[in-house]
Amino acid sequence: MSYSEKNLAAVVKGDKSIDLRPWSVPDIGENEVLLSISAVGICGSDLKYWAYGKCGRFSLEGNPMVIGHEASGVVEKIGRDVKQLKPGDRVAIEPGVSCKKCDFCKSGRYNLCKKMRFCATPPVHGNLCRYYVHDADFCFKIPATMTAEEGAMLEPLSVAIHTCKRAGIQEGHHVVIFGAGPIGLLCGLVAKNYGAKQILTVDIDENRLKIAREFKATDLTYRVTANDKDPKELAEKLHQVARDDGCHAALECSGADSSLKAAMHVSRPGGSVMLVGRGSLDVELPMVMAGTFEIDVKGIFRYANTYPEAIRLVSSGAIDVTKLITHRFELETADDAFRTASDPKSEAIKIMIKCGV
Amino acid sequence: MSYSEKNLAAVVKGDKSIDLRPWSVPDIGENEVLLSISAVGICGSDLKYWAYGKCGRFSLEGNPMVIGHEASGVVEKIGRDVKQLKPGDRVAIEPGVSCKKCDFCKSGRYNLCKKMRFCATPPVHGNLCRYYVHDADFCFKIPATMTAEEGAMLEPLSVAIHTCKRAGIQEGHHVVIFGAGPIGLLCGLVAKNYGAKQILTVDIDENRLKIAREFKATDLTYRVTANDKDPKELAEKLHQVARDDGCHAALECSGADSSLKAAMHVSRPGGSVMLVGRGSLDVELPMVMAGTFEIDVKGIFRYANTYPEAIRLVSSGAIDVTKLITHRFELETADDAFRTASDPKSEAIKIMIKCGV
Amino acid sequence: MSYSEKNLAAVVKGDKSIDLRPWSVPDIGENEVLLSISAVGICGSDLKYWAYGKCGRFSLEGNPMVIGHEASGVVEKIGRDVKQLKPGDRVAIEPGVSCKKCDFCKSGRYNLCKKMRFCATPPVHGNLCRYYVHDADFCFKIPATMTAEEGAMLEPLSVAIHTCKRAGIQEGHHVVIFGAGPIGLLCGLVAKNYGAKQILTVDIDENRLKIAREFKATDLTYRVTANDKDPKELAEKLHQVARDDGCHAALECSGADSSLKAAMHVSRPGGSVMLVGRGSLDVELPMVMAGTFEIDVKGIFRYANTYPEAIRLVSSGAIDVTKLITHRFELETADDAFRTASDPKSEAIKIMIKCGV
Amino acid sequence: MSYSEKNLAAVVKGDKSIDLRPWSVPDIGENEVLLSISAVGICGSDLKYWAYGKCGRFSLEGNPMVIGHEASGVVEKIGRDVKQLKPGDRVAIEPGVSCKKCDFCKSGRYNLCKKMRFCATPPVHGNLCRYYVHDADFCFKIPATMTAEEGAMLEPLSVAIHTCKRAGIQEGHHVVIFGAGPIGLLCGLVAKNYGAKQILTVDIDENRLKIAREFKATDLTYRVTANDKDPKELAEKLHQVARDDGCHAALECSGADSSLKAAMHVSRPGGSVMLVGRGSLDVELPMVMAGTFEIDVKGIFRYANTYPEAIRLVSSGAIDVTKLITHRFELETADDAFRTASDPKSEAIKIMIKCGV
Repeated sequence: MSYSEKNLAAVVKGDKSIDLRPWSVPDIGENEVLLSISAVGICGSDLKYWAYGKCGRFSLEGNPMVIGHEASGVVEKIGRDVKQLKPGDRVAIEPGVSCKKCDFCKSGRYNLCKKMRFCATPPVHGNLCRYYVHDADFCFKIPATMTAEEGAMLEPLSVAIHTCKRAGIQEGHHVVIFGAGPIGLLCGLVAKNYGAKQILTVDIDENRLKIAREFKATDLTYRVTANDKDPKELAEKLHQVARDDGCHAALECSGADSSLKAAMHVSRPGGSVMLVGRGSLDVELPMVMAGTFEIDVKGIFRYANTYPEAIRLVSSGAIDVTKLITHRFELETADDAFRTASDPKSEAIKIMIKCGV
Repeated sequence: MSYSEKNLAAVVKGDKSIDLRPWSVPDIGENEVLLSISAVGICGSDLKYWAYGKCGRFSLEGNPMVIGHEASGVVEKIGRDVKQLKPGDRVAIEPGVSCKKCDFCKSGRYNLCKKMRFCATPPVHGNLCRYYVHDADFCFKIPATMTAEEGAMLEPLSVAIHTCKRAGIQEGHHVVIFGAGPIGLLCGLVAKNYGAKQILTVDIDENRLKIAREFKATDLTYRVTANDKDPKELAEKLHQVARDDGCHAALECSGADSSLKAAMHVSRPGGSVMLVGRGSLDVELPMVMAGTFEIDVKGIFRYANTYPEAIRLVSSGAIDVTKLITHRFELETADDAFRTASDPKSEAIKIMIKCGV
Repeated sequence: MSYSEKNLAAVVKGDKSIDLRPWSVPDIGENEVLLSISAVGICGSDLKYWAYGKCGRFSLEGNPMVIGHEASGVVEKIGRDVKQLKPGDRVAIEPGVSCKKCDFCKSGRYNLCKKMRFCATPPVHGNLCRYYVHDADFCFKIPATMTAEEGAMLEPLSVAIHTCKRAGIQEGHHVVIFGAGPIGLLCGLVAKNYGAKQILTVDIDENRLKIAREFKATDLTYRVTANDKDPKELAEKLHQVARDDGCHAALECSGADSSLKAAMHVSRPGGSVMLVGRGSLDVELPMVMAGTFEIDVKGIFRYANTYPEAIRLVSSGAIDVTKLITHRFELETADDAFRTASDPKSEAIKIMIKCGV
Repeated sequence: MSYSEKNLAAVVKGDKSIDLRPWSVPDIGENEVLLSISAVGICGSDLKYWAYGKCGRFSLEGNPMVIGHEASGVVEKIGRDVKQLKPGDRVAIEPGVSCKKCDFCKSGRYNLCKKMRFCATPPVHGNLCRYYVHDADFCFKIPATMTAEEGAMLEPLSVAIHTCKRAGIQEGHHVVIFGAGPIGLLCGLVAKNYGAKQILTVDIDENRLKIAREFKATDLTYRVTANDKDPKELAEKLHQVARDDGCHAALECSGADSSLKAAMHVSRPGGSVMLVGRGSLDVELPMVMAGTFEIDVKGIFRYANTYPEAIRLVSSGAIDVTKLITHRFELETADDAFRTASDPKSEAIKIMIKCGV
């Protein structure tokens, strides 16, 4: 039976359903590998395509799309020019394949490449399926001691690494993180590894904050309530909880506009606010204050050059990503997986889908 | 006659008037110098105190204040510990005196010092007067070939230097400048010196744009009209004028909220938007776009370590600041100077007040 | 007649002779282009292979090699995947093709790629020939106003750009350049463009220093004589000529060990010494002094991401590279070209060989 | 009894003896504090003044000097302008007082200030005494939980912090440290805190290497023997021990010329060699290799802006400096302390002298 005959893919159309369909596997190019997918995590952006058919500036525009971009797999076949991988190698899949030619690619910021092809960003299909073809240069061999699930978790971990790097987090920094979802938690763990002295995590959900404390992803927590309407007052409270007069870096990972505003107010002069979450297209922000205190607001879009570091952080035991996985499903029950992920009552942090070995 | 007896100071109260008053001259400290003021320029912030008694987060709170912070002078007397200056030296006055002790001061970002005392920022008096005492470490000897007016112009030039440095402007960059006032023009001249390949200046006033072109502070200009309401459409037009798909740095020097919005849209991925002007306290900005394209928004507050460079740029002839001076007054007619500065019909760029030799 | 039949290549064997031979043209790969070579400059490293069969850590090891790596050409044919170029396009050829896959390549320092294939570095053939195949990603379209010779000159200009960038040269810097050969002259021109306040060029040859002054590649010059044996004393003399107490950056472009020593002594605290030339394998250097004054010694190996900037600097007229070309030959007289280049009496700066249109 | 009457100072003359003398205490300036010294560590440079009357480029030139610069104390009296300290405060003393006025000071690199006055660097006296006056801006309040000895240890820890910062050590780096003395050990501990993945420490003394392993200041060790004469071969052996093809940063903390040479060979392309130790004035180094692989050699001179970080690292428990202290003496037995420190058989790492409470 050919790979195409054996393949099965989880397809979304923006109607909150998953179609499990046979899906043909393309021929592999000279520098590509055919992978048997092992594990795929579900991300917030996956949920948006599943539910609404769009996410940020991208839209399905009526076309069904294979979902999934947090994946690991096993090499089945390699293209003619592939030297660094061989069949049987277990790999983490960096889902974005850049053009390797433009100025962004040549100068180390390939995440900004205009020709980037990124799994499950329309019109590019994702890898929640059995068999999948990817550029070999974006497949990273993982050690025998690393599980397939850990390999899949390197993707959200990469976002956290890129965020902490661009925030310039270093020894002694005070960090405030808005949002204790998977990215917020991973940012806390990476910031700790970069020497942050104190991390304060803010969320509306006490359960998530409890998990953040248990995971040692944060030193302090603050639960936002309906009373915390004024971002400046909220920042004042956070100063009190943190016992400082502002943080070096505020990482907005919640997508809430109010959190972004508070992030501006909670920063100290010369500090950075990182735009990780995505809220409203336009948000009213205190720009006179940002100017007067030289607070920099920096965007985060995916990541570049993070996989080797992510592999090191996980394989050395510095960061335990497995503890974020709260639910597990099989490819055949992907529909349940997405419904669980979208249900706040599930208290899911990271949901992992097993596709193969 | 003592210095205090000879002194005369231009005092503002926030009612659009200038009081010329006798003003006592303080004793000089060990590390201070007594200066005979030569020339003082009028800045937009001076006008705000003159007209409304407040500017940004600072307010007169009913107390009269000597105005002026763009000044040069001649050393009359030096404190016991002053080694680098002697009576008769002509100096440019960096108006902010930092504490020299805090982390910001020791690490090179002294403009963020919380104990900064800055001329004509309440409650600190300015130097539009005859005699004035200042910390010797913030008085910079100017060469014999440099005029007193050029010495005073080093202050706004410093803002431009700090802006272009923090924007990372370098060879080949495309720069868009919003606002062709003194700071916008100086930013254009500095950006050119830093190797910017193309500068496009945007303003509502055709006369200002004409001056920008004449001063070679810009390569291209675009006049904004009442039709340019949509910042995204305006950015599209600017792309067409610039024949590019976005600038490396957009410098917002106008204080108009609409310009700040357009600045975000006119930046290329990975670009910087510099907050130089001050508009509304809160401004609605396209933050999903900023996040998705990793556009950094960076605040500018005064400057640090710019005077030596400003002296070099002017004394070498690289930047001719004198051509920005459109009107000249004497201290005795400071009232006229401020009224002229606040009158759009005057078409003033920089107004300079002569206080002494 | 096929391209292979029409081709003719200048082959070196390390015996101070040039063999003009027919040379087969390889098939073009999917991402490659076949070029008709227009102009090729001769570099010091070319002369070393021609004369001795080796240069630095590379050696012909008895194998004849097509020489030449400073080249421009015209696209004849393109590979299947080439989108950015078409037949008839005039291009400058960046001679090094990196693997595009390793950490160095992905993070913007591809000049350190261990799998780099670089023209006329054994065992890779050069491009002093009629027809030549190169990776399309390292061919840069040049504007119609740029001559083929200027296109070839972008290669040595790239070395100067990379040197000045890594030296961190900026506005106000004092720079001392050892060696007024093509690279030293180009470093001076680039440093000027980066805002260097004062450039002092040092050489043993008064004629070269005269040219440096005429080309405005330097502000000051000093001719080293047999009396300048002590590097510390030489540095003292240079301080006097420069009227400073040390430079921000000293660029060693001569390959003389004594110059490298003097470069260390002529730097100010916190300054940089750039290793551009290659002298003895081991050189005795004042390391206690380097430690005590935090003088950084930085190696330069080729360049990365410089061609777009080089094109801008030349096409804008900021740097006139043509004036460095003192002699011109045809491919058929390449033998004369190399003999002239190696003859000090020729007073050659840059020798250019015409291969086609 | 006045402070001068109560004071006693340890004076060196370069003849391997310590004179305990009465020593007058100067009046305190406006911004100074009078300190009762608590603990003072002995450093290698102290030993050089004690034994030979000189160290690096500094010499006693026949003048007796109070020794000591690794000190902590208790505030007895404060000058008129001192706000941040009060009598009774326990402080760590940053021994260098910079001018606070020059470009180096204003831009954050005050360790390069030409007017730096540094304890026990002639002609400035040190603080191995009972009472001592210091600039308040360079006295750092230490928490109640920090011992006086820990406060003194912040000085050598500062050298390690400055070294690792300037080396750019970050997550994942391989680091090789030459010399397992106090600075080498502290560099290992700081590098670990900065996320270094693997540290290999090299020394001739197996006991020191054992201590490095026990202190978890290193992952791997290599004992150099008389057979390791060739720096290139030594580097090959280190590659084998490290199982890599070169380190990101090689920290030379031994002062041995041969180690500096090996440090160059053990670096990977683009790596850094840090000059921490001081060996011969001139050392023969492989500069063609440094050029070809863009290996940067960076000097280290003391430190700047490190004390706040040093306090954090020690008070948080991240680095335990106390375990480096192998011997303790009283001021009255300082002579024994120096003799012990200079005796290799003592196997001393850090010797601490108690001066008061």
